Order: sequence, then structure tokens, then C-alpha cells
Amino acid sequence: MGRLTGGDPSLLRRINSAVVLHALRDGASTTLTGLVQLTGLSRPTVEGVVEGLIESGLVVEVPAEEGRTRRQGRPARRFRFRTEAGYLLGIEIGSHRVAALLADLRGRVTDSASRDVSEAASPDERLDRVRATVADLLRRAGVPRSSLRAVGVGTPGIVEADGTVTLGTALPGWTGLPLGDRLKRSFRCPVLVENDANAAVVAEHWKGAGTDSEDIVFVLAGLSPGAGSLIGGRLHRGYGGAAGEIGALHLLGREAKPEQVLSTTGEPLHPLDEAAGARVFARAGEGDPLARDAVERFIRRLVHDVAALVLALDPELVVVGGWPAGLDGVLEPLRRELARYCLRPPRVELSTLGEAAVATGALRLALDHVEERLFAVEGTVTARR
Amino acid sequence: MGRLTGGDPSLLRRINSAVVLHALRDGASTTLTGLVQLTGLSRPTVEGVVEGLIESGLVVEVPAEEGRTRRQGRPARRFRFRTEAGYLLGIEIGSHRVAALLADLRGRVTDSASRDVSEAASPDERLDRVRATVADLLRRAGVPRSSLRAVGVGTPGIVEADGTVTLGTALPGWTGLPLGDRLKRSFRCPVLVENDANAAVVAEHWKGAGTDSEDIVFVLAGLSPGAGSLIGGRLHRGYGGAAGEIGALHLLGREAKPEQVLSTTGEPLHPLDEAAGARVFARAGEGDPLARDAVERFIRRLVHDVAALVLALDPELVVVGGWPAGLDGVLEPLRRELARYCLRPPRVELSTLGEAAVATGALRLALDHVEERLFAVEGTVTARR
Repeated sequence: MGRLTGGDPSLLRRINSAVVLHALRDGASTTLTGLVQLTGLSRPTVEGVVEGLIESGLVVEVPAEEGRTRRQGRPARRFRFRTEAGYLLGIEIGSHRVAALLADLRGRVTDSASRDVSEAASPDERLDRVRATVADLLRRAGVPRSSLRAVGVGTPGIVEADGTVTLGTALPGWTGLPLGDRLKRSFRCPVLVENDANAAVVAEHWKGAGTDSEDIVFVLAGLSPGAGSLIGGRLHRGYGGAAGEIGALHLLGREAKPEQVLSTTGEPLHPLDEAAGARVFARAGEGDPLARDAVERFIRRLVHDVAALVLALDPELVVVGGWPAGLDGVLEPLRRELARYCLRPPRVELSTLGEAAVATGALRLALDHVEERLFAVEGTVTARR
Repeated sequence: MGRLTGGDPSLLRRINSAVVLHALRDGASTTLTGLVQLTGLSRPTVEGVVEGLIESGLVVEVPAEEGRTRRQGRPARRFRFRTEAGYLLGIEIGSHRVAALLADLRGRVTDSASRDVSEAASPDERLDRVRATVADLLRRAGVPRSSLRAVGVGTPGIVEADGTVTLGTALPGWTGLPLGDRLKRSFRCPVLVENDANAAVVAEHWKGAGTDSEDIVFVLAGLSPGAGSLIGGRLHRGYGGAAGEIGALHLLGREAKPEQVLSTTGEPLHPLDEAAGARVFARAGEGDPLARDAVERFIRRLVHDVAALVLALDPELVVVGGWPAGLDGVLEPLRRELARYCLRPPRVELSTLGEAAVATGALRLALDHVEERLFAVEGTVTARR
């Protein structure tokens, strides 16, 4: 961090607050002396900052332990970051399910809830489901709505920076929906909306199969797959937010429609009917020849889509997820075919977050937003220069 | 730029030199007073720095114009950046041609040369061609080899940071070739080796069809196409340098081999025989039905490859180049099909640099390298903090 030799005193106070808060958040409870050592600030500065943080509710004094004996004098006061001073929500609004995760200011999930929703639900019905799920979750956890600091949302479609879904063919009525604005009516804190596959890749990088890589493609392997990509640890959204929407590749006049890929009867499956898809996988596992053929078609298509992503982007790691069951059977063919056809084949792993990936990524985006505000010391200094 | 309040005096001198050099390079000749105003440095500092730059050969005093009259006193001394103080080379080592561009320190091309080379040439023969082409070029331009400051090279294949071609199936013997090391024997300056499509996208961004965009995919549309991508103005090489090597997508068991795509006889074309490809395009233009079918197959394949790149990356602009002739016919079908199948279709343009794209991009990489050394003030300051 650069040394500040002058300038705006309120900026200086904010920076010092962030420095102290950062030191408190990363460790256990600490004394003033400890904070002086950790931050390099003077003792009077630390005292002033800590008083301010206590007033704002972000820091609390830890009561002296009753049984504790000290060799001399009264015990030094100890302080800790109040992770419970604010809460975050990570929400997935999917085709057949809405899910929400509640977390404290460190991003630790304290509670979760989900509800089924019809694939045919209108935006109003779907958003009612979201509101009911969140209301239940907050009531059960005893968290007042006013203590929410940020809400992240992951949903299918191309999402603008302002939270509008510019194109979302997977959910009825989704295209053109000002989803961010609609949700802001329910929350008094910032609401951040992101494409579901983008949220999922952020989640796998945070606490899933991709914690050791910065260059990841996450494939949401539904009947019409989508993908989210991290490049150098940063989300690659594309120029118009449409990066990774690989599902259309098979519409170029040569391939079966997605609905036919997993069909064993000639009748198309509903493209969002994941349960029907899972049943086909299960029957293939039991040896049903028609189901096996269908799974083979599905895998061939998935291999082709993933190969296109890998050849275009050259990631270190491909994480496959998004399908409730049966995906473990695709790993081996994927690895084999990518090794044959890609100049530099990536590692291929299953999602470890499974169904929770999208909501977890949405939560991480909410946490990023809050951390930027609380802890953005470097950024603040740079912006003032 | 941050203010320097202390630290390494030689660093300070280097920074001041870079500041003065930058001011001189961007404008016409300037007086000391002009430089004081442009840089914000003191007059004694500017005088010292200019003396040093004259000694190093990078700056020269402009002779006073003889006919010029001044109202009083002797004319103020004027100085200019010696763009001719050093030279740069941009080299393409292709399958059937080697080409070289010579430029001054501003990147202005002063001369060029090229030679044909057999597609079957060994690495030794191919590098002999490169050396002969460069020797001719330098001799003709009257530029001593010792005044070369950097050499950029663009060539097919996956290229490591050290200039080794880890995989290059297009040229015989290319895989595993330590191309950077081999060329360093001929030059006493840094040699930077880059994948040809990567070099081309840098070129189109610098002075071609993509000067107004930061998110570009360049498609080298040969029989087995490759691509280079800029994301946010920066080259996207991929985790292992293989990003954009889309050519293998059609090997996934469903498509004709590249050699058959443009064949009108059933006999495969040589994959690097661009002249034969151009003849098929010409015959199609004359109405030959077999040639028309072949061109249609070629376009269908190109559309599919470009769609895969576009769906994965979502660029603002696709630039198509790399084929000597006939490519204008692919623009319309490409635009039409991408508009049908991509959620957010990009603009599609023809390369304006044509055959010069790869060598021009290699030149830009050499220029970047030199500019980083001469003008990297911000970078230097940051690195020391």
C-alpha cells in the first residue's frame, strides 16, 4: 500500500477504518496493542477507528473471560469483527427450482432454503416463489431483512450490468425482464444479477472443484448446455454478456434438437425436464439399450460443445455440473475425447457443489460487493491519485 | 503518475529520461522550454536528461534552419527523437512464404521483403529462407544488423513464452523446435515469437479492421482455421497458449477432413496449398457447379468454426483473413448465419491488412517490447513500490 502524505482527511479515516477492519476480520479477537502491531497505525489512531467501528456496529468488544486470571492489572480489552453485523443472500432462480443461501459477512453459509417452481411459471409467479423462499429463510434464521447488506442472484440468460435479462429463452417471460429492479423492491440493499453459469464458475473457484485454478470453464450440462469462464481468475462475460452460450452451436443445421438428444421414444423431452433426463441416465445404467443410445447421443453432443469451448479458450480446468444426477458417466468420455482432439487438453472434473453451485456463486458476488466497500483500501487510494 | 519523494536516484533518472523521451517521441522537435512545460520537470533536470539521451543516440539536436529569422538573440536549440536510432523487424514464418517488415522506433514500416518457401521445407531450410530474406532487406535499406532493437516473429503452432514451438503440425519439423533460440543466433537483440493468428489479431487492432474495438476474434481462414483473440485489448493466449486452435473441432467424428472440404474431384487438396484453394474459389465465381459445392462446404465449415468461437467468447468484432483471395464471398453467409444462431451476433469484417497481417502483428510485438523498456514510467514506479 502506498504511503499517504496528505490529502482528504475523511479519506484517510476511511482507509484507516478499512485497514483495522481487515486486520480484525482475518483473525480472532485482538487487543489494541495487537491492532497497532498488525496495522502499523499509531495507538491513538487505532483507538479512534475502533470506537467508530463499534458505533457502526461492525466491531464489538469481547467480554473479558470470567475465569481467566491475569498475572497483573486488569485484562487488556479485546475486540472482534461482528460477522453477524450484516447478512448476505445468494439466490438461484432456475427453471424448476428457486434456492437461497444466507451467509454472514465472512461468507459463511448459516442457513438455506429452496422451493420447486413450475417450468411454465410466469415471471410474477416465479418472483413470488423467490420472495416466499427468502421470507421463510429470514424468519427461520431470525435475521431481520434490514440487516441484509447485499443480494446476489444467478439465473439463466444474458444479463445486463443493471440486472435486466436481455435474452433468456429458458424461462417463460424472462427476456426483457428488469429482474434487478423487480427484486430491489423486496430488498433495501444492492441486488446483483448474474448469468447462472457465470455464477457457478465463480462458486467452483471459491469453494468447489476449481479452488486451485484461475482459468476455468464451468459447463452447465443441461439439454442445452451453457458455460461460464474465468480467465486469470476474473469472470469473462464477453462483450455483450453472451460468452459461453454454446447451446446454439448445434442448431447450425446438422444436429438433432436438444429435446431429441435424450429421447428414447422419438418424442422430444421438455428441454427443462431434468428429472426425465435423469431417468434416462438411470435406465441406461440398468442396461436399457434405447436409453444407452440416448445417453451416448447426449455425451457426443456434450463432448462437441465442451471441445468448442476448450479450443476457443484453452482453460486449465473444465468443471462439469448442473445436472442433478448421472453426470459422473460423462467424465471418462469427455477426458478421452478432449485428449484426442485438443492440442492441450484441460483437466476435467465434476462440480463438487452440485445443485448449490449457482446460489453459492451468487452469494460470492454479493460478498465481493460488500468487501469492495468495506475493505477496498488499495482501490480507494488509486482512485484518488 | 505518482510523485517520487525519495528512493533510488538511478531509478529517478531513468524515469525522468522516459518522461522526456515520451514527450519528444509524440511530437515534432521541441525546445528545452517546451520540454519543461510538457514534462513538469525543472529546466536543469531536463537539460541533464537531454544530454544523456543525446549521448545514448536516442535524441539529436535539430540544426537551426538557415533561412529562419528571429526577432532577437540566437534561436533556441531544438531537439527531436531519433526514430532512426534503432530498427525493428516483424517476421512471418508461414507454410509457403516468409515475409519481413522493417520499421523505425515509432513503428513506421520503411521497407519489406518476402520469399516463397516450399511447404515441405525442413526447419533448417525454412530458417535459411528467413535469414536470407532479412539479410537482403537490411542490405537494401542500408540498416546495420546491430541497430536492430527487437525482432517479432509470427508462426503457426503453440508457442511457449521462451519461443519454443511446443506443437506445430502445419509446418514439417516445427513441433519442439526452439525457434526463439535458433533465431537469437542471427540477432543480438530480443526475439519474440508468437502464434500467427495471435500476431494477426494484434495487427488488425493496431492498424487494420479492428482499430475501434478491444474485443476481437481474428480468424485465419485456411483449410484448417485458427484464431487469435483480444479480450479487453489484451491478447488471450489461453492457459497453455492454445486458445483459438479451433481447427480440430471438425475431427470429432462428424465432418469431412479439411483436405476434402474444398476438393472438387474427391482427391484431397494439400492442406497448405492455398493457391489450389484460391483456384477453387475462382472457378466457383465462374459458375463451375463442383467448385460451387466445394466453396459451400468450405463456408459451412467456416461458419461452424466461427460460431463456436463467437459463442464461447462473445467478441464485439470478428475479422476474417489469412486466405489470399476469395474471402469476400464468405462475409455475407457468415453474417447471416451468426445473426441466426448467436444470441448476440458480432460485427464481421474482412482483414484490411491481408497478407501483411501476421508480420505486422509480429512488428507490433517487437515495438511493444521496446516501448516497455524506453517508456515504461508507470510500470517502473509501480514495480518499486
